[in-house]
Amino acid sequence: MIEKNESVERLLQVGIALSSVEDLDTLLDLILREAQELMGCDGASIFLVEKNKLVFKAMRSGTYFRMWGEEKTKATFKTFEMALTKNSIAGYVALTASALNISDVSQIPGAEQYRFDPAFDEKYGYKTVSLLVTPIKNKKNEVIGVLEMINAIENGKVTRFSGEDKEIAESFSSQAGVAILNTSLTEQLREANFDTIFRLSVAAEYRDKETSNHIKRVSYYARMIADKLRYCTEDCSLIFWAAPMHDIGKLGIPDSILQKPGPLDPEERKIMEKHSVIGAKVLKDSKVPVIQKSKVIALTHHEKYDGTGYPMKLKGLAIPAEGRLVALADVFDALTSKRVYKAQMPEEQAIKIMKEGSGSHFDPEMLDCFLGSLDEVREIRDKFEDKPEDFDKLKDTGNEDLGELLK
Amino acid sequence: MIEKNESVERLLQVGIALSSVEDLDTLLDLILREAQELMGCDGASIFLVEKNKLVFKAMRSGTYFRMWGEEKTKATFKTFEMALTKNSIAGYVALTASALNISDVSQIPGAEQYRFDPAFDEKYGYKTVSLLVTPIKNKKNEVIGVLEMINAIENGKVTRFSGEDKEIAESFSSQAGVAILNTSLTEQLREANFDTIFRLSVAAEYRDKETSNHIKRVSYYARMIADKLRYCTEDCSLIFWAAPMHDIGKLGIPDSILQKPGPLDPEERKIMEKHSVIGAKVLKDSKVPVIQKSKVIALTHHEKYDGTGYPMKLKGLAIPAEGRLVALADVFDALTSKRVYKAQMPEEQAIKIMKEGSGSHFDPEMLDCFLGSLDEVREIRDKFEDKPEDFDKLKDTGNEDLGELLK
Repeated sequence: MIEKNESVERLLQVGIALSSVEDLDTLLDLILREAQELMGCDGASIFLVEKNKLVFKAMRSGTYFRMWGEEKTKATFKTFEMALTKNSIAGYVALTASALNISDVSQIPGAEQYRFDPAFDEKYGYKTVSLLVTPIKNKKNEVIGVLEMINAIENGKVTRFSGEDKEIAESFSSQAGVAILNTSLTEQLREANFDTIFRLSVAAEYRDKETSNHIKRVSYYARMIADKLRYCTEDCSLIFWAAPMHDIGKLGIPDSILQKPGPLDPEERKIMEKHSVIGAKVLKDSKVPVIQKSKVIALTHHEKYDGTGYPMKLKGLAIPAEGRLVALADVFDALTSKRVYKAQMPEEQAIKIMKEGSGSHFDPEMLDCFLGSLDEVREIRDKFEDKPEDFDKLKDTGNEDLGELLK
Repeated sequence: MIEKNESVERLLQVGIALSSVEDLDTLLDLILREAQELMGCDGASIFLVEKNKLVFKAMRSGTYFRMWGEEKTKATFKTFEMALTKNSIAGYVALTASALNISDVSQIPGAEQYRFDPAFDEKYGYKTVSLLVTPIKNKKNEVIGVLEMINAIENGKVTRFSGEDKEIAESFSSQAGVAILNTSLTEQLREANFDTIFRLSVAAEYRDKETSNHIKRVSYYARMIADKLRYCTEDCSLIFWAAPMHDIGKLGIPDSILQKPGPLDPEERKIMEKHSVIGAKVLKDSKVPVIQKSKVIALTHHEKYDGTGYPMKLKGLAIPAEGRLVALADVFDALTSKRVYKAQMPEEQAIKIMKEGSGSHFDPEMLDCFLGSLDEVREIRDKFEDKPEDFDKLKDTGNEDLGELLK
């Protein structure tokens, strides 16, 4: 309901604000917040087109937020899908790629294909009157979503949206579209990076007969401790994604040692221990933060708190925190996991061994933190439990459906 | 020189246009183009702050483009660095974080710290009169670069920039800043992904005594052919980044076979051949395009054009193009590379063998294309030539500077 000139200036600011958001959920919420303010309306929601469906993604509502608070409202209006047809208002806007300005949803002429669905209103006692619904498009002008603005408010009363509101909303939707696509691209790239790291880390541990679950559990344990120690979000996330590569240097260790059934003799042990340095050499000189972090972890995850570890015999806090974290997570997981050559150790026994290592093998503060969160530890362990088939699921059994694999 | 209201509307459009560009060079050029048009000036250039320097990144100029054409102009004004001090105009703007509107560079009062550097004007016969210089900031309000607009033009004559020009330029610079940061983030993420792929692929071939150069050469050969066959840019790039992972399944092959000095017996060969299926299983079920492509390459890079390859005995065009491409590149590189156990084969002999494989082992069209580009093939081979130290640079020699490695 602000003036046109003023609103165009504001749109400029809004465009910049939207473009600065890196994750999609935050962005969608900001889009809704700005839509409410620019259009002076009670509520707003966003649908995105996914695989020929309209998926309800996010909403804000003055009325509901006052009534229930933000959290309860958002929990109530969880994501749902609807068919992409012209029978719904959002579907109609998505398929025709043009905005609808409806002054009263109870007065939609019978000749129109779309209908207002009163289900939510009836269920929760809200009364939708006016709607302004705009398509969100990508740069090829394809509709990627729909923005719904609900109940324009003027002087505290519900009114219709003006023609000017519609213009502003259309311009705003273009900005929102670009921001959504940029953020999705960023998220896709992050996901691509993490998928690559994880797959190749799993492949690298394959000869060691570790499962992909071992790598996941270590990453989750390490992040859990980092989080409890109040490391910043970025560090927690870097540790989580760098941890899988801690044993990448085992690629440089011969089968005869890596897969030897019995204990290693001193000479073999010396060769085995080279995996930390080999790993660091594989990962060194990168400009990429997660690879830099993984290099430090590869190099230092066998150091011990009392300085008796390898390869540098670093002591105490001289061992980088990420190395101390992964050391703890890795040992605990080794103790509590079934391996081909050994059964699972009872949890109490594993905890006893860990406690004995406090201050000698492990950072005592980190260990306390870890052992103080056993519920979460168990949750992670149960979620990524090894099943018998996990031990050879990468193997070529000779029976795979190659045609299926090629697809 | 356009009117304020009109220009604000245009800024909205421009913001959307800037946000849609994915690579930095294209973005910088678009920013300059829009700056010229919005401000109605002859030239514009961009500096970015990198490691406490100001780096000249891009320029556009009506006068020079008319005189020399775009290409020659851009080649002449290549990137250069300058110290980040208040003595230069760009440096002053960067360090004070506020815009300068200079009506005549020859009349800068002596009391000012900054000076106009006439070196380029004198060298190339241009006359800079008016300058409008704005800081480009990130969302924390830190200066990340400087936008210089040169010689405002009105009715074909050089004039000064107006106060309104300055306002518009400042608003435009904010939009440019957000777009530059978004594009840089995207480029960093792409780079991170490629760095991960490459490092872990090298690590995976380590046991096979391949060098990181082998992986690079195969990727470059494959992309070169794809490019000559006029595959779209995206496919060329996907093939380039997926090719390194073609042998990832060798992780599943025991040392005794993978590193056997002599030829393999039929039983061993059968095990060795499993690496294509193992690789595909490591890479299957990904949503990430480059991993999907690498799965297909891992599975099919040992198929032969006449249907005698493995694991599926696919024939001719039934073998996915990316598999045919990498097969050819991989065999050629194996023939022409020095390995620990064999000398390098003379090029003519390798070409003769490749030609004998036309239509039996290799796709004839791809092979013709490859052999028709021998200059480029040689360039790639020379650029990524194996040196003796490449064969064990990942190994832990026991002499590395661990403190250096930890940094």
